Amino acid sequence: MHKLIACWSAPRSEDEDAFEKHYAEVHLPAAAASPRLRKLVAIRTNSALEGAEPSFYRVAELHFDSEADLHASEQTPEWAAMRADAGEMIERFGVSLEVGIGTEIEAELRPA
Amino acid sequence: MHKLIACWSAPRSEDEDAFEKHYAEVHLPAAAASPRLRKLVAIRTNSALEGAEPSFYRVAELHFDSEADLHASEQTPEWAAMRADAGEMIERFGVSLEVGIGTEIEAELRPA
Repeated sequence: MHKLIACWSAPRSEDEDAFEKHYAEVHLPAAAASPRLRKLVAIRTNSALEGAEPSFYRVAELHFDSEADLHASEQTPEWAAMRADAGEMIERFGVSLEVGIGTEIEAELRPA
Repeated sequence: MHKLIACWSAPRSEDEDAFEKHYAEVHLPAAAASPRLRKLVAIRTNSALEGAEPSFYRVAELHFDSEADLHASEQTPEWAAMRADAGEMIERFGVSLEVGIGTEIEAELRPA
């Protein structure tokens, strides 16, 4: 799988309800409409290790069968609409969005 | 699935080979030995959107069946060894590690 990982910073606490509503009702559906998308995963990162603050507030993963499929999706109106909505969220909520893209490798587990 | 997402910043370019070697031969096997771990995914995030620099260099996901399983794993010597190795990597390579933990939700796709 080739996937895009999007890490959102936390909104201000007074904006959290509005952010969550927008995310669930507008942004996630916009992402879900991306052509050639194979799987869409959303994670609300409530916690971190050893009681530290989580480094990000939400993570989304967009899975594609290949890099070519992701690139094809990027050229579509649906993708442009999702990106435009992300820009609106950044502006409205003062959040930041960090993105990385690459091919996922599943490692073999080594149970004791 | 309850999962831990670990985002690594990029090592210096002259350290990249050594980082990759350590990651593949020491760190990923250490993570793979975590008790109760259900799935381990590693992604080398080579690219980002619209030709921007990726926000992080590598992402790893540790998947567990539940929050309780993750918490139990955190109490084991295998987990401690992985964390100690992460600390060594941070010191040796001057990288940073951002972590978020939460429950993954798979969203329904909406093909056009």
